Amino acid sequence: MPQANPVFVELTRADFVESRHRGACAVVDSTGTVVHAWGDIKALVYPRSALKPLQVLPLIESGAADHSGVSDEEIALACASHNSEPFHITRVTAWLKRIGLSVDDLECGVCESISLDVTKAMSQSGEVFSRVHNNCSGKHAGFLATALHLGEPTKNYIQPDHPVQSRVTRTLEDMTGTSLTAAPRGSDGCGIPVYALPLQAIATGMARMMADDLGEVRTKSTQRVLSAMASCPHCIAGHKRFDTRVIETTKGDVLVKGGAEGVHIAMIPALKLGIALKIDDGTIRASELAMGCVLDGLGFLSPEARQALADLIETPIHTTIGDKAGVMRKGPGLTF
Amino acid sequence: MPQANPVFVELTRADFVESRHRGACAVVDSTGTVVHAWGDIKALVYPRSALKPLQVLPLIESGAADHSGVSDEEIALACASHNSEPFHITRVTAWLKRIGLSVDDLECGVCESISLDVTKAMSQSGEVFSRVHNNCSGKHAGFLATALHLGEPTKNYIQPDHPVQSRVTRTLEDMTGTSLTAAPRGSDGCGIPVYALPLQAIATGMARMMADDLGEVRTKSTQRVLSAMASCPHCIAGHKRFDTRVIETTKGDVLVKGGAEGVHIAMIPALKLGIALKIDDGTIRASELAMGCVLDGLGFLSPEARQALADLIETPIHTTIGDKAGVMRKGPGLTF
Repeated sequence: MPQANPVFVELTRADFVESRHRGACAVVDSTGTVVHAWGDIKALVYPRSALKPLQVLPLIESGAADHSGVSDEEIALACASHNSEPFHITRVTAWLKRIGLSVDDLECGVCESISLDVTKAMSQSGEVFSRVHNNCSGKHAGFLATALHLGEPTKNYIQPDHPVQSRVTRTLEDMTGTSLTAAPRGSDGCGIPVYALPLQAIATGMARMMADDLGEVRTKSTQRVLSAMASCPHCIAGHKRFDTRVIETTKGDVLVKGGAEGVHIAMIPALKLGIALKIDDGTIRASELAMGCVLDGLGFLSPEARQALADLIETPIHTTIGDKAGVMRKGPGLTF
Repeated sequence: MPQANPVFVELTRADFVESRHRGACAVVDSTGTVVHAWGDIKALVYPRSALKPLQVLPLIESGAADHSGVSDEEIALACASHNSEPFHITRVTAWLKRIGLSVDDLECGVCESISLDVTKAMSQSGEVFSRVHNNCSGKHAGFLATALHLGEPTKNYIQPDHPVQSRVTRTLEDMTGTSLTAAPRGSDGCGIPVYALPLQAIATGMARMMADDLGEVRTKSTQRVLSAMASCPHCIAGHKRFDTRVIETTKGDVLVKGGAEGVHIAMIPALKLGIALKIDDGTIRASELAMGCVLDGLGFLSPEARQALADLIETPIHTTIGDKAGVMRKGPGLTF
């Protein structure tokens, strides 16, 4: 059994703590040095969708992005866990069409929107969810575009031994400085392989997006990803979502990306810092709040941003009548 | 900071553990003796909706239930966190009408269904959520019926100093053997007061539903609740829900009731045992699975029930494509 990590987030009802979430978090600079750490940052973690800013690099480095005129919005969609809003669906569908493919070429499964509002709106209009509504459909469009550009089969592009996935794996190994040969491997929600890495290595991979020693091709590629994420926050997640609000409010000074099972990463380009955190119990409410508190606690939010994002740092909990019943807030294990 | 409780539930992806939920659980007999315990069972816990089988007792003991011909279905609805299915809404609405009241007399707030299927169906049909759709509306109908019968004002029946709530509080003190005078008090989701009690006391309250020394009035009342819960499992929760499935499958041999923030109780009438469990992080997926594992581990499920409820004891996790990616299962801290 791994050690008990510190309490990152607690929920109160009146003045009494009702629930607690434990976690670990690493802040790493672009040389790979840990500058802050809470909990067991050596423990292996599946990075899930928080890894997308690294998974998109081969789309650019292969020349596929330039060749087929991929826009910043499309790069951001390839990094996204989007809400399946009409905004997202239109753009992913158009991208697939432009490269001569269709929704049927996507190998991610069908799933409902992350947003209850979108799911309700679709029920109301009678629209049916398809593969393009999968929150990962932009990432999959990027995989398809890369395979097509390199003359590889588009079929089975989600399989671990397909060149698309081998290329992504090599990129992850490069960026995180970690061999994945013997790493635990599972299937991510959208069907592609996912490897477990030390939390610290995930933070390192994010920090190295801003490193000085990446060489010309990769530097151009990482800069393109950072700039696409900064300029298209709505592509990354959607209406009311944590990632979109943080990137939008900070005008891209802080780039964030969440993943399933309580993983969240951040990149602070100006300071060349990468952050990775995991909530032990996998709860998104806690990983988002903990990331809000880390960004705030380390001073990465301007006073204006802090004010606009106050509910992401301490979230009021209301009764169904609308009275304030308590808060979700920073736990005692997250000290600065 | 409280101690770290044992890991009750773990999620795997391939063979690697991705997330972990910690918790505590007490199994108590009707004399108040702890017969099994995991984790810190002295720690205070808000029992939330898991307390409903005790909160309903004054409805029966006041004579209100007999006077206005309350059915077993209505008793079960007063113990319920229902799905707001048409089945539930019709019955709660009819109950209110029969006692000369309406949905407008309910003081619980409006909230969406616990069931995504119901929320989607309502979006599709254009039906609007009202107070009767609150999953606690049956409990509130019971509060109103009691106040009306005793000639108390129906207005403000959710306030801590209203006789309806004072009576419920005294009943809880009696059944759990715990003074609530100095207990932390918050507002529950539906607006009524909620007190934090030791987890062990919550289990005791449930076990004492089957005690021999309750006196005639209370014995009649507890028997009525047990029999209503056993005979109306669909009232308690709804389609596909844990509580409904367990009660239905065990034919009432095992009575279960979940609450918000990872609380779950069970009553085993034949063995006069009460169980209370809290997942530290408040996650329902974990409290339900842990309760399934406790019921199984202590041998409270017949081979047939165990087979029918297998997915509540070990839940497969699938990718969006439909491939099995891992499982949610009993953690190493839940030993039998």
